[in-house]
Amino acid sequence: MPKISNKGIYMPASPIRKLTPIAEKAKKDGKKVYHLNIGQPDIETPEVMLNAIKNADFKVWAYTASEGTESYRNKLTEYYNNINYNITPEDIIVTSGGSEALTIAMMTCLNPGDEAIIPEPFYANYNAFACQTDVVVRPIMSHIENGFALPPITEFEKVITLKTRAIIICNPNNPTGYLYSQKEMEDLKMLALKYDLYIIADEAYREFCYDGRKFISPMHFEGIDDHVIVIDTVSKRYSACGARLGALVTKNKEVIATAMKFAQARLSAGMLEQIAGEAALDTPVEYFEEVSKEYTARRDILVDALNKMEGVFCPVPGGAFYVVASLPVDNADKFCQWVLQDFTYENQTVMIAPATGFYATENKGVNQVRMAYVINQKDLKAAMVCLEKALEAYPGRLFV
Amino acid sequence: MPKISNKGIYMPASPIRKLTPIAEKAKKDGKKVYHLNIGQPDIETPEVMLNAIKNADFKVWAYTASEGTESYRNKLTEYYNNINYNITPEDIIVTSGGSEALTIAMMTCLNPGDEAIIPEPFYANYNAFACQTDVVVRPIMSHIENGFALPPITEFEKVITLKTRAIIICNPNNPTGYLYSQKEMEDLKMLALKYDLYIIADEAYREFCYDGRKFISPMHFEGIDDHVIVIDTVSKRYSACGARLGALVTKNKEVIATAMKFAQARLSAGMLEQIAGEAALDTPVEYFEEVSKEYTARRDILVDALNKMEGVFCPVPGGAFYVVASLPVDNADKFCQWVLQDFTYENQTVMIAPATGFYATENKGVNQVRMAYVINQKDLKAAMVCLEKALEAYPGRLFV
Ligand SMILES: Cc1ncc(COP(=O)(O)O)c(C=O)c1O
Ligand SMILES: Cc1ncc(COP(=O)(O)O)c(C=O)c1O
Repeated sequence: MPKISNKGIYMPASPIRKLTPIAEKAKKDGKKVYHLNIGQPDIETPEVMLNAIKNADFKVWAYTASEGTESYRNKLTEYYNNINYNITPEDIIVTSGGSEALTIAMMTCLNPGDEAIIPEPFYANYNAFACQTDVVVRPIMSHIENGFALPPITEFEKVITLKTRAIIICNPNNPTGYLYSQKEMEDLKMLALKYDLYIIADEAYREFCYDGRKFISPMHFEGIDDHVIVIDTVSKRYSACGARLGALVTKNKEVIATAMKFAQARLSAGMLEQIAGEAALDTPVEYFEEVSKEYTARRDILVDALNKMEGVFCPVPGGAFYVVASLPVDNADKFCQWVLQDFTYENQTVMIAPATGFYATENKGVNQVRMAYVINQKDLKAAMVCLEKALEAYPGRLFV
Repeated sequence: MPKISNKGIYMPASPIRKLTPIAEKAKKDGKKVYHLNIGQPDIETPEVMLNAIKNADFKVWAYTASEGTESYRNKLTEYYNNINYNITPEDIIVTSGGSEALTIAMMTCLNPGDEAIIPEPFYANYNAFACQTDVVVRPIMSHIENGFALPPITEFEKVITLKTRAIIICNPNNPTGYLYSQKEMEDLKMLALKYDLYIIADEAYREFCYDGRKFISPMHFEGIDDHVIVIDTVSKRYSACGARLGALVTKNKEVIATAMKFAQARLSAGMLEQIAGEAALDTPVEYFEEVSKEYTARRDILVDALNKMEGVFCPVPGGAFYVVASLPVDNADKFCQWVLQDFTYENQTVMIAPATGFYATENKGVNQVRMAYVINQKDLKAAMVCLEKALEAYPGRLFV
């Protein structure tokens, strides 16, 4: 029997992979499981987007141009220029989700063995994409105590080597929900210029900024056009994860031309999705206002409830729909498994993700968990009651 | 300005990239261009498939399971078992087109520097996927004289090294249209077993076999379950290229488990496409009978017309919707460009693909072209008249 590849062996599996069958079993056993473990929002997809699909009229479901249809890219350009990105349609390649855009960006910008600096904890699949493209991840630590703010620039400089080619930043952040400030983004700009690095800015959660705070993209800065690559997706913006529609956006002509070769190899993004994505750009502002109100309310419920539990600490995030909290437990991996497997409160339980999967450094975040507030407020409250009861009952509970 | 990656530099561009702007210009100048250059069929997508989209009823366009939805994989299993593949739903990972399935298969089975043997000419994007995954392509020559039959097994053995891990075979073939025989497939089986190799069988054109000839998959053979990976796609079968829906199918449990890690990293295939793909499996047989009749007629028109032209030779392919023909020209790259740029017959011209892009060996196929019979019979006839006139007028014409 032929061997599988080393890349296949080392490819990291999903951090919640071990928990999934346990959750399945819990459900089979009749328990109600509150899912706070994944980034799949329950929010409805905008009607204009769903209607565009129903009304799409075509006879041949054909390939589109590899860079995306002209009309979708034109409309996307309007959207980006409304938020002052100052781009042209030629700066966009439409992709199959932000995931594909990330892989293409990595292949385009980094050689095997080249290094990308990423503040940790970070979106676990960055590890997977790095493994796929033989990129070396150099994590630098951000800390729960200050809400996972950007580590000081001196920390970045400590790990910069001749092989460093990129900084990958997710803003607002998954898993921490942290929203980077103007000052932090300016620091990154200086760093990119000083060391001639790419900034790969994953803006999957761009629309999710709370408390009236401003979203800052490196696209807003002058003098770094050739350094900035934005990763975008409709997944979260329109609660359209299953559309698999994203984009790679950069004003660097060489990067676009090269990324285009990777895009051509896989032929095109989905045709129907681009029609839907174009229509989605007409989503009324009220939709986003409501979504924002809803998420803010959920965040507040979650964060308040968590910080009221003894020994729990959860910073208040400024964006996205995640929080990372520290729990008074010996080991959050064990705790998350125990809650699903051995615990029940009024026949309910919760599924949350241990944070270790979001740290590249071993033994970090062992008492932390990530929660996504993607369920309704009533369920969220019930989930928090469950969690509190679970913490009280957990045998590995720590008392400080 | 940061440098782009070496991979980006070496990544092959699409073989018709240079011709595309020339064709655009020709159209702008008012010429009618017959497109025989791409694999985008004009055939209508089955109604059941399009209706499934219109009737899909959902509020949240959500991620699906990374391996594909259960109901789509169940139905696909029925389809495969009807053609005697003898698989289970667990043997399937649903992908974003055959393209993604190919990349995942390569990453799963081959290390950087490992070698895959591919009979040439071959689908040009295999080079691109190999570049992406650092796989080394070892081409072996198939010849127009015998219709591009499988090269003798001794030719394979000549290039087998300790680094050889896979044979990639496309059946029926793009670009040649060649349909491999039972004997040829059995030879490949023996080779795979003798040298412990994977057979990556790209079956994008499975449904396109003519003259009542039988399609043979390595899935039909016993004793090589662990060696066979089938690449599938709805692109050509249902003329649904823009759906970006494919599959990786293998009975090798280790390959599936590993491929699954790559599939999880990119989260999921399109949700709506899987609904459509499931419905497409109910396409009435009459659809395929008609399509087959249509393509057979077109193939006959094309091959007859070509072989009637002086100095042209075109074998009769048994499948797919492509032919590779040799032309009496100094250089087919130049000829294809000249036809678009400098030639016109009754204000019409043709776009065809030079075959060099399908050969990995340099200077091979310089007088060959690939044509896709994806336009209607009337246009196809007109295109052939054009081509004949062009060959007569071309300054680089060879007379033998
Ligand atoms: C930070 C981040 N980036 C990228 C993605 C990929 O999303 P998609 O491929 O659905 O666009 C996700 C999905 O959860 C994410 O959280
Ligand atoms: C031989 C072959 N394999 C794979 C593909 C990829 O097709 P898709 O990604 O649309 O499934 C094609 C497309 O033309 C092809 O010709």
